[in-house]
Amino acid sequence: MPIITGEQYISRIDQLGTEIWIDGERIHGKLSEHRAFKGIMNSQAELYSMQHDQSLQHELTYSSPTTNDLIGRSFIQPKTKEDLVKRRQMVQHYASYHHGLMGRSPDYMNTVVTAFACSTDYLQGKENCYPEHLQAYYEYAREQDLSITHTFIDPQVNRSNFYIEFDEKPIAATIIEQNDKGIIVDGAKLLATQGGMTDEIFVMSASNDGDGNRAFAFAIPSNTSGLKFICRESFALGESEFNYPLGSKFDEIDSLVIFDRVFVPWDRVFYVNNIHVANTFAQNSLFRPLSLHQVVARQVKKTEFLIDVAFAIVDSIKIEEYTHVQHKLAEMLVLQETIEALLLKSEHNAQLHEFGYICPQREPLEAAILIYPKMYPRMVEIIQLLAASGLINIPTENTFQTELNDDLNHFLQSKSQLGEERVKLFRIAWDLTMSPFGTRQTLYERFFFGDPERMSGAIYNLYKEKRNL
Amino acid sequence: MPIITGEQYISRIDQLGTEIWIDGERIHGKLSEHRAFKGIMNSQAELYSMQHDQSLQHELTYSSPTTNDLIGRSFIQPKTKEDLVKRRQMVQHYASYHHGLMGRSPDYMNTVVTAFACSTDYLQGKENCYPEHLQAYYEYAREQDLSITHTFIDPQVNRSNFYIEFDEKPIAATIIEQNDKGIIVDGAKLLATQGGMTDEIFVMSASNDGDGNRAFAFAIPSNTSGLKFICRESFALGESEFNYPLGSKFDEIDSLVIFDRVFVPWDRVFYVNNIHVANTFAQNSLFRPLSLHQVVARQVKKTEFLIDVAFAIVDSIKIEEYTHVQHKLAEMLVLQETIEALLLKSEHNAQLHEFGYICPQREPLEAAILIYPKMYPRMVEIIQLLAASGLINIPTENTFQTELNDDLNHFLQSKSQLGEERVKLFRIAWDLTMSPFGTRQTLYERFFFGDPERMSGAIYNLYKEKRNL
Amino acid sequence: MPIITGEQYISRIDQLGTEIWIDGERIHGKLSEHRAFKGIMNSQAELYSMQHDQSLQHELTYSSPTTNDLIGRSFIQPKTKEDLVKRRQMVQHYASYHHGLMGRSPDYMNTVVTAFACSTDYLQGKENCYPEHLQAYYEYAREQDLSITHTFIDPQVNRSNFYIEFDEKPIAATIIEQNDKGIIVDGAKLLATQGGMTDEIFVMSASNDGDGNRAFAFAIPSNTSGLKFICRESFALGESEFNYPLGSKFDEIDSLVIFDRVFVPWDRVFYVNNIHVANTFAQNSLFRPLSLHQVVARQVKKTEFLIDVAFAIVDSIKIEEYTHVQHKLAEMLVLQETIEALLLKSEHNAQLHEFGYICPQREPLEAAILIYPKMYPRMVEIIQLLAASGLINIPTENTFQTELNDDLNHFLQSKSQLGEERVKLFRIAWDLTMSPFGTRQTLYERFFFGDPERMSGAIYNLYKEKRNL
Amino acid sequence: MPIITGEQYISRIDQLGTEIWIDGERIHGKLSEHRAFKGIMNSQAELYSMQHDQSLQHELTYSSPTTNDLIGRSFIQPKTKEDLVKRRQMVQHYASYHHGLMGRSPDYMNTVVTAFACSTDYLQGKENCYPEHLQAYYEYAREQDLSITHTFIDPQVNRSNFYIEFDEKPIAATIIEQNDKGIIVDGAKLLATQGGMTDEIFVMSASNDGDGNRAFAFAIPSNTSGLKFICRESFALGESEFNYPLGSKFDEIDSLVIFDRVFVPWDRVFYVNNIHVANTFAQNSLFRPLSLHQVVARQVKKTEFLIDVAFAIVDSIKIEEYTHVQHKLAEMLVLQETIEALLLKSEHNAQLHEFGYICPQREPLEAAILIYPKMYPRMVEIIQLLAASGLINIPTENTFQTELNDDLNHFLQSKSQLGEERVKLFRIAWDLTMSPFGTRQTLYERFFFGDPERMSGAIYNLYKEKRNL
Repeated sequence: MPIITGEQYISRIDQLGTEIWIDGERIHGKLSEHRAFKGIMNSQAELYSMQHDQSLQHELTYSSPTTNDLIGRSFIQPKTKEDLVKRRQMVQHYASYHHGLMGRSPDYMNTVVTAFACSTDYLQGKENCYPEHLQAYYEYAREQDLSITHTFIDPQVNRSNFYIEFDEKPIAATIIEQNDKGIIVDGAKLLATQGGMTDEIFVMSASNDGDGNRAFAFAIPSNTSGLKFICRESFALGESEFNYPLGSKFDEIDSLVIFDRVFVPWDRVFYVNNIHVANTFAQNSLFRPLSLHQVVARQVKKTEFLIDVAFAIVDSIKIEEYTHVQHKLAEMLVLQETIEALLLKSEHNAQLHEFGYICPQREPLEAAILIYPKMYPRMVEIIQLLAASGLINIPTENTFQTELNDDLNHFLQSKSQLGEERVKLFRIAWDLTMSPFGTRQTLYERFFFGDPERMSGAIYNLYKEKRNL
Repeated sequence: MPIITGEQYISRIDQLGTEIWIDGERIHGKLSEHRAFKGIMNSQAELYSMQHDQSLQHELTYSSPTTNDLIGRSFIQPKTKEDLVKRRQMVQHYASYHHGLMGRSPDYMNTVVTAFACSTDYLQGKENCYPEHLQAYYEYAREQDLSITHTFIDPQVNRSNFYIEFDEKPIAATIIEQNDKGIIVDGAKLLATQGGMTDEIFVMSASNDGDGNRAFAFAIPSNTSGLKFICRESFALGESEFNYPLGSKFDEIDSLVIFDRVFVPWDRVFYVNNIHVANTFAQNSLFRPLSLHQVVARQVKKTEFLIDVAFAIVDSIKIEEYTHVQHKLAEMLVLQETIEALLLKSEHNAQLHEFGYICPQREPLEAAILIYPKMYPRMVEIIQLLAASGLINIPTENTFQTELNDDLNHFLQSKSQLGEERVKLFRIAWDLTMSPFGTRQTLYERFFFGDPERMSGAIYNLYKEKRNL
Repeated sequence: MPIITGEQYISRIDQLGTEIWIDGERIHGKLSEHRAFKGIMNSQAELYSMQHDQSLQHELTYSSPTTNDLIGRSFIQPKTKEDLVKRRQMVQHYASYHHGLMGRSPDYMNTVVTAFACSTDYLQGKENCYPEHLQAYYEYAREQDLSITHTFIDPQVNRSNFYIEFDEKPIAATIIEQNDKGIIVDGAKLLATQGGMTDEIFVMSASNDGDGNRAFAFAIPSNTSGLKFICRESFALGESEFNYPLGSKFDEIDSLVIFDRVFVPWDRVFYVNNIHVANTFAQNSLFRPLSLHQVVARQVKKTEFLIDVAFAIVDSIKIEEYTHVQHKLAEMLVLQETIEALLLKSEHNAQLHEFGYICPQREPLEAAILIYPKMYPRMVEIIQLLAASGLINIPTENTFQTELNDDLNHFLQSKSQLGEERVKLFRIAWDLTMSPFGTRQTLYERFFFGDPERMSGAIYNLYKEKRNL
Repeated sequence: MPIITGEQYISRIDQLGTEIWIDGERIHGKLSEHRAFKGIMNSQAELYSMQHDQSLQHELTYSSPTTNDLIGRSFIQPKTKEDLVKRRQMVQHYASYHHGLMGRSPDYMNTVVTAFACSTDYLQGKENCYPEHLQAYYEYAREQDLSITHTFIDPQVNRSNFYIEFDEKPIAATIIEQNDKGIIVDGAKLLATQGGMTDEIFVMSASNDGDGNRAFAFAIPSNTSGLKFICRESFALGESEFNYPLGSKFDEIDSLVIFDRVFVPWDRVFYVNNIHVANTFAQNSLFRPLSLHQVVARQVKKTEFLIDVAFAIVDSIKIEEYTHVQHKLAEMLVLQETIEALLLKSEHNAQLHEFGYICPQREPLEAAILIYPKMYPRMVEIIQLLAASGLINIPTENTFQTELNDDLNHFLQSKSQLGEERVKLFRIAWDLTMSPFGTRQTLYERFFFGDPERMSGAIYNLYKEKRNL
């Protein structure tokens, strides 16, 4: 049966032997047993296993149009508004598990690949474009229930407007050779979240400087020869769920991706050397509306989680009577109402796209992702302002396992909790807003769909189009 | 036919002889010809006349359940989500005419009276409550197509927490006598927008200090003996549409309402001397959700108008290329998407209310009116920041009627407009954001649904209820 | 005696016969008796007369270095920190009279001319520059106690980056002819505040498009042939001080300035046809630090005035107990402390400039004028949020002169004021924040020292210089 | 010689044997060798050693009025404005070493003790007050160059307005016994930063609930019997300066302080059982102005450090040309100018206090600490917005010590730096804004001088006093 289990996911990744480096060492042995990957791979496995939960299966899967096997619903190519509604529900089932903290949960990348596959029409007949490879790849991923990550962005060497890379050895990943079997890529890509812990990696490049050799899209297995993942340090500071309730389970690790003369066979190449396509495919395809639909659905659950934490704190230390506390909670509730409403509007006003699929209305989704990068950090700030010194006085699990236990339960008690219970709650708040895991979440939401300084352009341009300005 | 025309509205008001004072004089003669009322009464008349426009009539009216005559759709008591959608469309038809600048257009007050009539169940069986009077008044207003205003708030004498009015002569309107024919009211109410230019006035009072004589609701004709309307100065600074394109047409005049021993017959009294009802009826009835639905529908059109003005300025002086300009426009577009989405959500998730009518979901409406009082002033600010010095150099219509005409057309030209056309545009922006009319609009939106410092409580309490906290 | 009286100022202006247009008419007769100019010219006259007040004279004047006569202290070329301190005190004496509401009080323009005269070294030896004319003009202005306005900005036709004016008839003022007697200027300048009600006008032009004919500086009498001032409508809505307590006295009227082949003799020309000088003189001379010093000194008094109004409102309706009220007042007090402190720092760290005069430290002044355009509108907003509906219920003076007087005094009373007194206070708040006069003040502060989008550059560049980056 | 060296400081603390718990273990052995304390104690030692640096000694020390020995200048009781200026310079010398990151550097606590000693007049003649003990303690601390921490706040059990602790066993530290030798204290205090790594601890308590047994002030040695410090986990995530350039050196560790029937001899008690004094001493003494003067002086240096980091990032990835980047840097520079100016104003307008010492003007200091808790988090946000993805791709030191070194230097290079250098810079930014050390700094500045919701009261009250309102 195509949909895999968590065990299958883990066993498949453990066998790859992908080249991954972390803190000065190349990882040998099972990736799923490495300190830095254990927690997150286990969480990822849980998501795969949910597909087999009988109470959820009909919402998380559907029948393959080619094989009739059960396949993940995140692969569905939407034809009706109902399809969009079900997509959203599926995304939110997964997000309920990870509180919206996993940006690269499988349903995200499946949506991305699906969205591109919905858009093969855009590539049809264009120079050096292979829509049939993209379609085949989509079906392959769908039927194998592949885990995938992606990497889009070039290294951040020099971001001035007139910078042109000029180096003998490429920095940004570049095609340095083509032959009848495929292309050879050399250089690096800035960031792959979950890099190394997925079956495959999807690589796309805009060409900022007009060099066709940096205008491509392809996908390859993570263990392709010459491909290396250089991880940042792990933000899972320890395995104790008491101490690091979120980081220990949801730190997706980011890595630099190095292509050391990596060979990509033609059937995995979606386009090459077409600057126009490279610079417009993501904007003009269903990628943006369908991915944003997934993203905003996830953010709804994340917002709920932050609201739950905020209310739990307010309740714990009994501060609900203060007007400023009610203002702060209301700010969070207004955000939740707003993004839920925008998501609903995108579905309600969805329209048939020229490529034959149903496309969520773009304006409300663009609005949502202009709001979220500003409001997510504000929610984080609100939690800090509510919890205050409670975020500092957070002894570790071990401290509660000593002769001090009674004292700590007494002195750190809240209105209705013993010290241990209370510290547990405040450590969630700390891990969400102040640990390296938490701050990386904030940074992630700040920049999720691109440079906030440039993102305003999207909604502005949609308005102009609509009014024929 | 019950729905009236503009002419009928004007003639009815002109005949009332209501006691209205402005700038030291009591108005005698036809109100509709007085400098301060001419423009706004004409606009109000246009709204009534729209009901007879054949292309709109089916959207603006429906058949009376009692007489089968055509009556205004703003009187409909919603039973289905479709009813809500049609309500919104009706409101937005009217708002398209007045750009959302008339807060007391007839559809607003009709909605208010209708909402209360939908809630007579709340009064049923409660002490000193007369639900049957309210029901009768609603039907009377509906079948006569009455124009109505309301006044709710007491004078702003002392707003400290522990203030209790203690004066021989009442300040806030108070029942000073009851007899078998009715009640006698003495004192004042702070504000009636459109006070004096409507057939009737609807008076409600919360009882902040626990005095049952200030716990009542009733409605009376504007020309009731002892009732006086003391207007602020007119913000229609002149009749030239070039100079005051908005103020000359839409200044609704606000007035202080004085009750000088005003007699109210029992059949016009909805409740008296019931502090609990007086303090909870507005919150617990359909008043809040149905009125907010009308308000947010209007604000959508107002927002559109401000966006149109902003884009026209950007286009006029050709500043669209600047990133900060795109940011500012995007802010406005995000607001528009947001409130449209919240309104849609309130309809989409509407539910049957215990009183038997369909009730729009409250949370998104409460969110909308927390957002709008902050964002409306921001839109005003954005227009000022975009138009800049263009808001200062705005010679009057007369100046263009002189030998200077060619010079002004030349020196004040914009990218694509002659000086006169350009100044016309910038005077709209000025009248919207900087004239006394415009600033009163801003103040109005800031405070429309109450003290912004206290309004957070509403959404917070809804959340608590939902989660049984 | 060189320092003039208010009467002398008025009589001098009334005799000029300057060409001034307002609301479709050219003003004939005495300017000081025209409805639009009466109030402001009277206020200006008061400032001149203050020079003769024996208790202030030693602070407002000093002895002319050339004639030993008493001359205005705003003409002093500072040589010591003490000179700066005294300059500030002088500015604040004047500002105490006009509450900081007059941006073009004589001390401002005197400071501007003085600052340029302190910078003649910059022009020395540069092509087409006449530092000796500038020096002579400064001495002439000083010894005659001239009233002056300035105009710097070109019409706002098209503000895109790559716009080049290309029209047969100039729009922006341009030198269209030079001969041995002088230059002939044609075109317009966007804005002269107080245009027409001063003896002279000082004209400067940067050359945005590289045309040397728009690279000049000169000064001429207001009644020069061919010079026309086209006023916006008056924002003094009436003469009643009760109704328009600020606008009736301080509306400085702005005008478009048209140069219809205006002849300027060489001895009034400071430079021509030197693009580099035209684009750098204001930035590199003492103009910016000395003018900013005057501006910030004025803003300190304006801030004090707004704070006084805010506290009076709080006291009137007794709302000081609310935390949010204290927050809002504290915001205003923090601003006051901040700009006072920045001003003090600029004096405390003043240094000898290469041109031989003492120069206030620039960084704190640049900081102040980045803060003020954001905080002034916020103070305006705070006053509106505090006064709330009190800003709507503001019957006019005439209304209090009727049989309603007792009623209005009763119903509009505040904690400690009768209605009339209370309305008087709230009308000040209205005139300051919501009347056309008030909103023009807000716009003025928003843009006072240039486009807020570009102003950040100044402080950034100072920092870079200091660190040799 | 009274001023001690770093070695003396370390050796004194190591000998105390104070009861300190961390992560489930009681620390035995030398505290200065424990992983969590090593870095910070070494930094503290550096500060003591600076006193012996010949180039700084005259600025960091002065002669004891009692012994003529050299003592720390932070103990000086200011009599002149010059004393305040020198105080500030001394504070900023120390802060230059720790970038303002040490809130409890010795000069802070010395200032606190000194400020209280300047205020013994307040205690004179009041019930249960011992000004002579306070004076003696000050002299003892000064002559021994004691390291001290303080703890003021009670546990955060229930912060509602009407909470009264009612438990058999005290939670907040409480006097449970008095006898002729001293008092016995039981209960806990919320937080002592540097708890355990100082010679002494200064304990003060307001009495929120009116229980005189919680109205006291005293100081005792850290190793007093029954006194326990329960630390949060260490935020020094490792010893590598490359990885944790700030946390490894400046994490001051916070701890809960438990008083298990702690005996305090009378000569160390400053007052007991005087609720009025306990609730007013900090506000009405020189504590607030003198401590704030120290704090703001430190914040000036911290701000400089953040600005340096921001400019280094801008320079590294070459983004200075963008307007939004200049805006962001300008925001930081404006803050720096502002707090420097406010500090200067507090010195410039300092006045003789009734207790005989010179007191910095309070208003500007109160303004500064209303600004800083809002602006510090904004600076943190700006650094994140500028550095963007550069804060994610930060391989550890070890990673650079592998065969990957060349690749990393190449792919992670910036405009002018090899990868290693560049990552070093971005890890500083990460440690400052996103590590647990960095986020605790942000929280610290948010709450440094109390609940931001209540702090507005201070400046508001000063204004009212000044105007006799």
